[in-house]
Amino acid sequence: MKRIDGRKADQGRPIKMTKNFIIYPEGSVLIEVGNTRVLCNATIEEKVPRFLAGQGKGWVTAEYSLLPRSTQERNSREAARGKQSGRTQEIQRLIGRSLRSIVDLEALGEKSVTIDCDVLQADGGTRTASITGGFVALVIALAKVCPKDKPFPIKDFCAAVSVGLVDGKEMLDLCYTEDSSADVDMNIVMTGDGNFVEIQGTGEEHTFTKTQLDKFLDLGEKGCKNLIASQKKVLGKIADRVGK
Amino acid sequence: MKRIDGRKADQGRPIKMTKNFIIYPEGSVLIEVGNTRVLCNATIEEKVPRFLAGQGKGWVTAEYSLLPRSTQERNSREAARGKQSGRTQEIQRLIGRSLRSIVDLEALGEKSVTIDCDVLQADGGTRTASITGGFVALVIALAKVCPKDKPFPIKDFCAAVSVGLVDGKEMLDLCYTEDSSADVDMNIVMTGDGNFVEIQGTGEEHTFTKTQLDKFLDLGEKGCKNLIASQKKVLGKIADRVGK
Amino acid sequence: MKRIDGRKADQGRPIKMTKNFIIYPEGSVLIEVGNTRVLCNATIEEKVPRFLAGQGKGWVTAEYSLLPRSTQERNSREAARGKQSGRTQEIQRLIGRSLRSIVDLEALGEKSVTIDCDVLQADGGTRTASITGGFVALVIALAKVCPKDKPFPIKDFCAAVSVGLVDGKEMLDLCYTEDSSADVDMNIVMTGDGNFVEIQGTGEEHTFTKTQLDKFLDLGEKGCKNLIASQKKVLGKIADRVGK
Amino acid sequence: MKRIDGRKADQGRPIKMTKNFIIYPEGSVLIEVGNTRVLCNATIEEKVPRFLAGQGKGWVTAEYSLLPRSTQERNSREAARGKQSGRTQEIQRLIGRSLRSIVDLEALGEKSVTIDCDVLQADGGTRTASITGGFVALVIALAKVCPKDKPFPIKDFCAAVSVGLVDGKEMLDLCYTEDSSADVDMNIVMTGDGNFVEIQGTGEEHTFTKTQLDKFLDLGEKGCKNLIASQKKVLGKIADRVGK
Amino acid sequence: MKRIDGRKADQGRPIKMTKNFIIYPEGSVLIEVGNTRVLCNATIEEKVPRFLAGQGKGWVTAEYSLLPRSTQERNSREAARGKQSGRTQEIQRLIGRSLRSIVDLEALGEKSVTIDCDVLQADGGTRTASITGGFVALVIALAKVCPKDKPFPIKDFCAAVSVGLVDGKEMLDLCYTEDSSADVDMNIVMTGDGNFVEIQGTGEEHTFTKTQLDKFLDLGEKGCKNLIASQKKVLGKIADRVGK
Amino acid sequence: MKRIDGRKADQGRPIKMTKNFIIYPEGSVLIEVGNTRVLCNATIEEKVPRFLAGQGKGWVTAEYSLLPRSTQERNSREAARGKQSGRTQEIQRLIGRSLRSIVDLEALGEKSVTIDCDVLQADGGTRTASITGGFVALVIALAKVCPKDKPFPIKDFCAAVSVGLVDGKEMLDLCYTEDSSADVDMNIVMTGDGNFVEIQGTGEEHTFTKTQLDKFLDLGEKGCKNLIASQKKVLGKIADRVGK
Repeated sequence: MKRIDGRKADQGRPIKMTKNFIIYPEGSVLIEVGNTRVLCNATIEEKVPRFLAGQGKGWVTAEYSLLPRSTQERNSREAARGKQSGRTQEIQRLIGRSLRSIVDLEALGEKSVTIDCDVLQADGGTRTASITGGFVALVIALAKVCPKDKPFPIKDFCAAVSVGLVDGKEMLDLCYTEDSSADVDMNIVMTGDGNFVEIQGTGEEHTFTKTQLDKFLDLGEKGCKNLIASQKKVLGKIADRVGK
Repeated sequence: MKRIDGRKADQGRPIKMTKNFIIYPEGSVLIEVGNTRVLCNATIEEKVPRFLAGQGKGWVTAEYSLLPRSTQERNSREAARGKQSGRTQEIQRLIGRSLRSIVDLEALGEKSVTIDCDVLQADGGTRTASITGGFVALVIALAKVCPKDKPFPIKDFCAAVSVGLVDGKEMLDLCYTEDSSADVDMNIVMTGDGNFVEIQGTGEEHTFTKTQLDKFLDLGEKGCKNLIASQKKVLGKIADRVGK
Repeated sequence: MKRIDGRKADQGRPIKMTKNFIIYPEGSVLIEVGNTRVLCNATIEEKVPRFLAGQGKGWVTAEYSLLPRSTQERNSREAARGKQSGRTQEIQRLIGRSLRSIVDLEALGEKSVTIDCDVLQADGGTRTASITGGFVALVIALAKVCPKDKPFPIKDFCAAVSVGLVDGKEMLDLCYTEDSSADVDMNIVMTGDGNFVEIQGTGEEHTFTKTQLDKFLDLGEKGCKNLIASQKKVLGKIADRVGK
Repeated sequence: MKRIDGRKADQGRPIKMTKNFIIYPEGSVLIEVGNTRVLCNATIEEKVPRFLAGQGKGWVTAEYSLLPRSTQERNSREAARGKQSGRTQEIQRLIGRSLRSIVDLEALGEKSVTIDCDVLQADGGTRTASITGGFVALVIALAKVCPKDKPFPIKDFCAAVSVGLVDGKEMLDLCYTEDSSADVDMNIVMTGDGNFVEIQGTGEEHTFTKTQLDKFLDLGEKGCKNLIASQKKVLGKIADRVGK
Repeated sequence: MKRIDGRKADQGRPIKMTKNFIIYPEGSVLIEVGNTRVLCNATIEEKVPRFLAGQGKGWVTAEYSLLPRSTQERNSREAARGKQSGRTQEIQRLIGRSLRSIVDLEALGEKSVTIDCDVLQADGGTRTASITGGFVALVIALAKVCPKDKPFPIKDFCAAVSVGLVDGKEMLDLCYTEDSSADVDMNIVMTGDGNFVEIQGTGEEHTFTKTQLDKFLDLGEKGCKNLIASQKKVLGKIADRVGK
Repeated sequence: MKRIDGRKADQGRPIKMTKNFIIYPEGSVLIEVGNTRVLCNATIEEKVPRFLAGQGKGWVTAEYSLLPRSTQERNSREAARGKQSGRTQEIQRLIGRSLRSIVDLEALGEKSVTIDCDVLQADGGTRTASITGGFVALVIALAKVCPKDKPFPIKDFCAAVSVGLVDGKEMLDLCYTEDSSADVDMNIVMTGDGNFVEIQGTGEEHTFTKTQLDKFLDLGEKGCKNLIASQKKVLGKIADRVGK
């Protein structure tokens, strides 16, 4: 069975990451996963949220937004509506939590990093692309400010991909059309050493079996491995500081 | 190793469900899971959200709230702050999505059911208790309005439980103290036939392996089975309409 | 003339107060007045609002909320609407003001007490039940933290009841059905020594005479006396500290 | 004992009402009570709120606002803060309820009248001045649109005044300085035939006896009579339509 | 060609400024420009916005609001809607910016002045009347607090007027009816020495030529001169401190 | 005198416009003016705002937003703050008004076009770049849906540029550093036939003379001509439909 864009079931979409897309942020990456394009900008500030004050630890958080016309139909601007949707808040909490899992907050020290993920074009998988691209922006930013003779505060790589059940078949990296008709949708976040950071699987109006779950996890592992290879490539020499 | 409240690692807390706790709702259940107490009220209205208008289908949605002093420290009232937190929105989306997975929306017809989950006392696992108790409130409400000679719009049972990694050990149904120190926290929603509805596992500042994941899933399955047995007991004869 | 629930015109509804309904608050009372049920939780915090900073005085304030399905028809959640209604604000201002009238704020010292009144079931008289039950929660909380060898910061008892003109007849303690058809509605807050704390009487689309007002006040006094007797009973030995 | 501005205890402040202060509204009155100045504008619209649709009845509502510098210290603008305070909402509910008590909503027909009460200068008693001046604006507006050969929808006059306990003495029509130090503060709304529309008495951190209450009511009756005499004078011939 | 109110094309409307209209503010002016009436109140506070803290400089800002019935049709209250419109914000930014242009913020010292411009009656030109009247309120307020032996922090006079293209003809000081049908609308803010502070010209669905622009500027200059003459007259002796 | 980036006083920055930057909108242009980059997306919808319903006319409106890290320091996200700033609203009103000036709303018919201007990188002149780029996106979008045998609803070209007084010298097209230190800042919007659409000039804490204004207008005219030449080039053959 061929997929809508000709891919095989276990095949991810082409990845492209452009470093320094924007000139002002400490770290900036435009990630493209097929037609999905997310601009990930990392900002480092010498302050921490109140609940961490005086503990010598840092913090990493994320914000996420869809540009109004990143989608096929225009969606109204959250700033104009006066609040962020539940979906937006859920996604930015996921991105922040995922990235914190591989950060050594003590080693980071009293700094906070904000990862802004602004979706320019949305063709499915925007939250996983945000994690994958946000990781790269985070590393670039920290490489600029962290001294080379101290442990680098990034403990491992981190990437994310979606998997799902479409037309009764487990598939990797769903595009929007596939996602819309999927019976099960799962986001998998993994580290460079092959551990899970986060699994969010949901069967909107459907359910799934343990056997299906295992296939999802296999696909997710394969997808994350490829993404991490891409991260290493785009990071170049900086990649070597991760986990050191 | 004994747990803080003397339970074994694979042992859930005592469950109690009080039907008709409040007299006005179509379905009302006070669910107690250990010290956690959630009031689940189901309201049926003869209308549907705009995006479903004229399709002959119904809808199920949920709202969730912590009473300010349900927690050990008072948390400020969301109505006073003027907005629901990201956590609240994430939870109520999860509850609604989980319950919709076992509802036949066509059989429901142009009705909407709102499940209000108000946490009176919070000792961990409030979102899973909301799903488990909300399911019972939903069935009670529908049993009142759905004719007995037509297919009942509930296709299967649905319950939820948390599992987690505490002190390096996989445990079922975390209380608040355990949850606060857990390295991995996972919510598992399952149906009566043993399928998964939703899996949300997260390692805040930690990761987990496939082996650990499999243990979590085993514990979750065990926990959900027990909860569904409790649901059947409290529903009594109405339980027989589920899936018919 | 018999009332809808068989009571005499000057007869209040049965009162029940359950102490320590919730385990975390410093003071917790579930008050039931007929079918009306309000959960009153008192929280003591070692801080005061800015306008009292450094004056050595404390503060008492209240928050009030109807659970969405406490009423016959579901009312939408204020946290979801993003603001508290005028009615809610008016009621919580009344509760706070009433309770402050019998508190010695100097004796309280730099503490603030928040009385959360969450209506689980609403059958008329929720604001007066909140005052009556809130008083008990307040006393329980303060009895825990105020040393016995110093003046207790509660100067007198305080209870509240509604009265009204229904079918041309003055009646005590209106239930929802009576309240809905009342020509005059009055809330009376009194102290243990028989003084008035607050009188709010309103003739929505009607007016009332001095003679009727005097009858309302007599009924109110009778009702408050009964409620204060109930407060003393539920408080037990702590009741003796009031006014000492 | 002389009062701060030389008045006797039972003496109200000088009243002045300027009709047609603003040219656009159907009814416009600038009321001055001592130094308190409130601009009351009545707007008639050929529509009713949703809950009255199709019942052939009308509605009267009020909005209230303090100009930022109507007070001795500037208070921040509610539009800038993004919400109306509890005090504002409580006052505008009182004004609307009071005025509705003397309106025959059936005779009004499917119209709604909004009374905007904007306080230009606040020296105590702004809510009662709003009711007294708002009544005049309402009558002027209705006199323009209601045919003379049909019953006029205003059944009686309506005016309001404050009374209070200052330095242990019952006083009529408190100015701001008196109000700030009053132990009891009461607002009394009465009709032309001497009935009560609304009584709101509160002893912030104090209480009051039945004897004091009776004195308050006597003062209030005296004050309202004078105000109604002023209303008749400023209304001139239109005054004769009230109650006809 | 005669204008709707009989004026010539280059003729402004009658100006009237009443000082001390409200007794509490440091500076208070009711400005009337034809039927447009704006109450301008200046408040001086001994504090500065955070971005100026510790710089020894002061700040001047403005707030603007239309009373709901200042207009022919009632417009809803911004405090009730919960936010200020884009129009309101644009206008208050313009007023503040214009007035700051003639203030010596260093000479002002660490004070902030808020100019509240509340429109009582709106017949066109409310923003320009706010600037012209706000200037007078500002000078009155500063004259009270600034020592006479130091440089006065107001460097020059400042007034504003509208011009526009109506029926193909350039006109000065448009009333509402003219403004509604104007093809081009321009607001001009000038100083006493004839310089421009701000020019905002817009052709809603139209454009304008350089020749027309020059005519607009001539009219604007003429209008501002007249207004500044009125400002000097109403300020009396205080006017002499400006620029000294 | 050389400018910070080596330009002459009357020299604009390099312009680049990339068509179809995003694939979903009816019209999409990434405009780059020096380091300023704005993504302009035009959405056409078959509906009109309520105030135009049933008039056979269309509408054009704009929304504007700075991405959080488009600036040198991160600015907080308006959706997170819950409201759009006054600056944002002022800018989006300007963009919409400017573009409507060259649209024949009758010829457009009952359609509405929304121009989303999202600033990716901000180095001064973002509002004028939004107008210049938004115009191109608008034309591309309309060219897709407007039949070729009917009059095209765009009457003329429209572009905008900033001018200002920096170090006492009139300059064209200020970059951020120049803008920050400018004594006068002016935005000029012009059409293809050399008329003015909008002029907004402001001397924040400064003023300007008629002579300076005339120089600003000359520079603005020169700048807009160049921008319109660029617009024609990027539009290619579609440019010929403008004004036909």
